[in-house]
Amino acid sequence: MKVAVLGATGLVGQEMIKVLEERNFPVTELIPLASGKSAGKLIDFRGAQIEVREVSREAFQGVDIALFSAGADVSEKWAPIAASCGAVVIDNSSAWRMNPKVPLVIPEVNPSDAMHHRGIIANPNCATIQAVVALAPLHRRFCLEYFSAVTFQSVSGTGKEALTELDDSIRSNLEGKPFKPEVYPLPIGFNVLPHIGPMDESGVSEEEWKMLHESRKILHHHRLQVSCTTVRVPVRRGHSEAIVAQFGEHITLEEAYAILSEAPGVEVMTGNNYITPLQAAGSDLVYVGRIRYDMGMPRALSMWVVSDNLRKGAALNAVQIAELVSSKADV
Amino acid sequence: MKVAVLGATGLVGQEMIKVLEERNFPVTELIPLASGKSAGKLIDFRGAQIEVREVSREAFQGVDIALFSAGADVSEKWAPIAASCGAVVIDNSSAWRMNPKVPLVIPEVNPSDAMHHRGIIANPNCATIQAVVALAPLHRRFCLEYFSAVTFQSVSGTGKEALTELDDSIRSNLEGKPFKPEVYPLPIGFNVLPHIGPMDESGVSEEEWKMLHESRKILHHHRLQVSCTTVRVPVRRGHSEAIVAQFGEHITLEEAYAILSEAPGVEVMTGNNYITPLQAAGSDLVYVGRIRYDMGMPRALSMWVVSDNLRKGAALNAVQIAELVSSKADV
Repeated sequence: MKVAVLGATGLVGQEMIKVLEERNFPVTELIPLASGKSAGKLIDFRGAQIEVREVSREAFQGVDIALFSAGADVSEKWAPIAASCGAVVIDNSSAWRMNPKVPLVIPEVNPSDAMHHRGIIANPNCATIQAVVALAPLHRRFCLEYFSAVTFQSVSGTGKEALTELDDSIRSNLEGKPFKPEVYPLPIGFNVLPHIGPMDESGVSEEEWKMLHESRKILHHHRLQVSCTTVRVPVRRGHSEAIVAQFGEHITLEEAYAILSEAPGVEVMTGNNYITPLQAAGSDLVYVGRIRYDMGMPRALSMWVVSDNLRKGAALNAVQIAELVSSKADV
Repeated sequence: MKVAVLGATGLVGQEMIKVLEERNFPVTELIPLASGKSAGKLIDFRGAQIEVREVSREAFQGVDIALFSAGADVSEKWAPIAASCGAVVIDNSSAWRMNPKVPLVIPEVNPSDAMHHRGIIANPNCATIQAVVALAPLHRRFCLEYFSAVTFQSVSGTGKEALTELDDSIRSNLEGKPFKPEVYPLPIGFNVLPHIGPMDESGVSEEEWKMLHESRKILHHHRLQVSCTTVRVPVRRGHSEAIVAQFGEHITLEEAYAILSEAPGVEVMTGNNYITPLQAAGSDLVYVGRIRYDMGMPRALSMWVVSDNLRKGAALNAVQIAELVSSKADV
């Protein structure tokens, strides 16, 4: 299959290319694309170096799968063009996620939605993916009514420049020097920022709305209620979430363990065990730990959910969707 | 008044001495006390240097107020001794907080409880104080039924050695060297740890139980329901909390702003404004920002609450209790 990656020089784009290689995706030709600014850079793939080309209509000719990770504006413009050239676009931006004609897919959760695409399939937001991977199997048996998620999101979700800003901010602080942030509104080193994406007049941030709307769409569960506060923390890679999930029926810890231990993509940690983002970085799994009966809410479990935001939260999920679509093509 | 400070060389003890000086507490003699290990060290107070003495029964003779911040074991042993010497002990450890004969006091919330002491008054846990300072004024008007709190707690809550470990852990990481933590179970630099205090067989940590039990006791509200996950973050000073508070009646944002703008010890931030721990460090206030109607819960507000854990979360609250007790003595 001819595979284009738009945004090939970004953190997620690079991870997409790495995942394609690791999972032996049947790539006959890889076409790394980016803005004019990054054209000419070299990308490693299967031991060869491939030159990044500037995105254009011509670049999508004959492409089977186009993995997009270049921001919403770029996606809005180029996804319809790539699709009209016959490619299946798997888009990691927020541009198409809530479009009713575009499936929003987590392969472990709603694979069949991917089959009804019209050329564009959306990859959910990183923070939503790991919450829904953990909650969906429990929802199927016990009917999720409500969940609250407070997130601890790493800076790699923002991009390369945020990783640099984190280190700069930390070094300045250690040296007692003032620091003027450019990526974030305030210094992120030795700090936490409850502010991911713009906040609207209701006081809710874009990242918080995504948790609500994307979860409902992926689970086909439009009465699901969600509370959410999303927070950036000085971690490089790996998002963590403190989740309280309330179900229609009482669920025991043993039932939760049993369901999650068979859930694809999940590693359940029993008892008081948990994992931290520093440990989860580079892994493909969604780790669910510290599962306990919630102290304050009936029929509810508390849990601590960690996953690598660049892998399952972005690149891996996109490549898994590509696998779904291509396996259908084989059939 | 003759004032003893037990744990005078610790982070909170030093802050207590600083607060006594800043607030012009009527100290006629300051007696800094500590374990034998720290005896002989010098403490600055009002331009003089005072030698730290080893704690002993004799040290409490004639003492009016004894501020304790030396851990639960030390408190269990020495608080009754100090009280039997006639001192009023204001204890920052967890040793006496849930003892029904010991008042647990936040001066802005339940000052009258302090008047019924039998020689020992307990200072609540840092994470609880800031949540309750923010919620109590709203509770009085709208009856708080439930709240969930997910905390982002700074390492200074653990003590001096944790501040050193944070810096060491960060420096090792920046230099690409391995790091073996001693204070925390895992590296805290570039990481978050959902683990404050031991967890029991129910999976709940000590810090999480404190949020429930201390809130109920301070508010005299034993049907209050609380969900809580407490998390350590790589921040030096200042705790942050993502809170969802559900009330018996509907409460508007305008009502919340009006109540909180008159609440003692609170700075309310309207609209989408918020403060971060790096900004709140060194301040005496509890900052309440990002107040919004919760997305997923009826009659509920979401908010972001930040305060300096060593000031209002510990030393300041203790000295305010001392002020309460001493003003009563004047009457």
